[in-house]
Amino acid sequence: MTDTNPQRALITGATGFIGSRLVQHLVRDGVETAIVARPSSSFDQLGGAANQVEVLRHDGSTSQLTEFVGKFSPEIVFHLAANFIGVHSSDDVAPLVADNVAFTAQLCEAMVTGDIRCLVAAGTVWQHAKSPPGDPIPTPNSLYAATKQAAEDIIAYYAQTGALSSIALKIYDSYGPGDTRPKLLSALAAKSAAGETLDATSGKQQLHLVHVDDIAAAFRHAGEMLISGQSSGHQSYTLPSDEAVDLQTLVAIWQEATGRTIDVAWGARPDRPGEIMVPWEGTRLPGWTPKTPLKTGFKTLFDA
Amino acid sequence: MTDTNPQRALITGATGFIGSRLVQHLVRDGVETAIVARPSSSFDQLGGAANQVEVLRHDGSTSQLTEFVGKFSPEIVFHLAANFIGVHSSDDVAPLVADNVAFTAQLCEAMVTGDIRCLVAAGTVWQHAKSPPGDPIPTPNSLYAATKQAAEDIIAYYAQTGALSSIALKIYDSYGPGDTRPKLLSALAAKSAAGETLDATSGKQQLHLVHVDDIAAAFRHAGEMLISGQSSGHQSYTLPSDEAVDLQTLVAIWQEATGRTIDVAWGARPDRPGEIMVPWEGTRLPGWTPKTPLKTGFKTLFDA
Repeated sequence: MTDTNPQRALITGATGFIGSRLVQHLVRDGVETAIVARPSSSFDQLGGAANQVEVLRHDGSTSQLTEFVGKFSPEIVFHLAANFIGVHSSDDVAPLVADNVAFTAQLCEAMVTGDIRCLVAAGTVWQHAKSPPGDPIPTPNSLYAATKQAAEDIIAYYAQTGALSSIALKIYDSYGPGDTRPKLLSALAAKSAAGETLDATSGKQQLHLVHVDDIAAAFRHAGEMLISGQSSGHQSYTLPSDEAVDLQTLVAIWQEATGRTIDVAWGARPDRPGEIMVPWEGTRLPGWTPKTPLKTGFKTLFDA
Repeated sequence: MTDTNPQRALITGATGFIGSRLVQHLVRDGVETAIVARPSSSFDQLGGAANQVEVLRHDGSTSQLTEFVGKFSPEIVFHLAANFIGVHSSDDVAPLVADNVAFTAQLCEAMVTGDIRCLVAAGTVWQHAKSPPGDPIPTPNSLYAATKQAAEDIIAYYAQTGALSSIALKIYDSYGPGDTRPKLLSALAAKSAAGETLDATSGKQQLHLVHVDDIAAAFRHAGEMLISGQSSGHQSYTLPSDEAVDLQTLVAIWQEATGRTIDVAWGARPDRPGEIMVPWEGTRLPGWTPKTPLKTGFKTLFDA
């Protein structure tokens, strides 16, 4: 990547898995960095970088956010804040819309008011869960994904006014050291350490699993595309691995890379109804490819 | 229209111009009707119908809405509640998302929880302000229209789960007796009564102006399509007049119909930058056409 660094970057979702890694990279490279966090957010995942960033503890108001964004005046905003709920209950509905849609609108408004033009926003391929390959018509498979799609509509509106240039990066699956999310790789590590059998589905479902460092690089590359004027209006891209792999292959690579063994009972659980066996393929972010093969990435998992 | 009536209908936005007319029609035809209103809403526009409907003063919670919807158990929900702001300021951002997106999500959730399947929701053609004719890709020209598009994404998600069947009706312009909104026809009446000249733009912009009784009929027809199973999943239709007319023609018809005269200085004001001169044409609601010619409709304007 021959991208140049912005001088000043603002990040939302900086206390999450991908956001915290992005902040660490920016701070390492001398980018003045500010983050917007909830009053209750823990900065544990940020490590030492937490002391090297400017922090807004956002009270939820548009006015406070607008003042902070205007004063810090970043060249680029990386918007990774999201409320992820896989299967929602009634009580989740209002918070999902507030956190994913309203906050995105407030951020866009704050940017436009402060004449901040460049926005890279995290999306999810689940916005297109049931779309045919390449079809941009959204088909979210969860209320979470529907609110992410709604948020992208709002971003696209602001971009259409000419006041904003934006890129939505639709993420598949991510992994890396320090990932505490309850996902497949955590389950593998736990079951392997305990010497227990992992009851799994058919293992035929394919996925794009991308190392967090590669995803962080994608955000910075998209930022550079916006700052340089190479991209304008609103664009939407995906961040796939070079090739989707099925779960069974993935577990085999994991064992080879980590030297650990795991007993998996494939087919012990049924595939979920409506399970997506082949992920939607959109348009990959131009000029970016993931650099970390799964085997290399898996080797680093237990280094953190 | 040979549509049969539902036994029980629930309406949001019932205190607005179109919603109140729809409620009056339903009550007149013996449909048991419930409305969801804000604690602060005035029922003036509902007239005598206000005493013939069941009312929820919604406290904003999903739980209260869910309980009310479940208990009333309507066959059809007409969702017309909206917060309309033509040109928003920063302070409007959070309320626009809350009123237009979050409330829509809460309503869908309440319906699904109560096993209520049929939803007709009001949209706006401004969701497609800059789209080529027939192109369904949204291009909202205001944050209001962007939040309506975001709300439709949420509805489409619920419909895609199979728990809901929905139709979005995209409204152009509406008019009728009792319309107190600050729109063209009000301005014509006021200036004509005062004997003043109305400074206008070129008057070349075309619009679809539809009588409120025809729009109310469209909602009921769409409801019937859902209840009968003729329509399923999520569908999106427009409610155009038979033919778009330009403003100059419209004023000529108004004068002829009402017997009033108005002095209009066409071109005294410039057309707004980005003004939409020819409205987007989508797919008209099947089985529905407006029955009220402009001349007939204009004649009734001063009868209220």
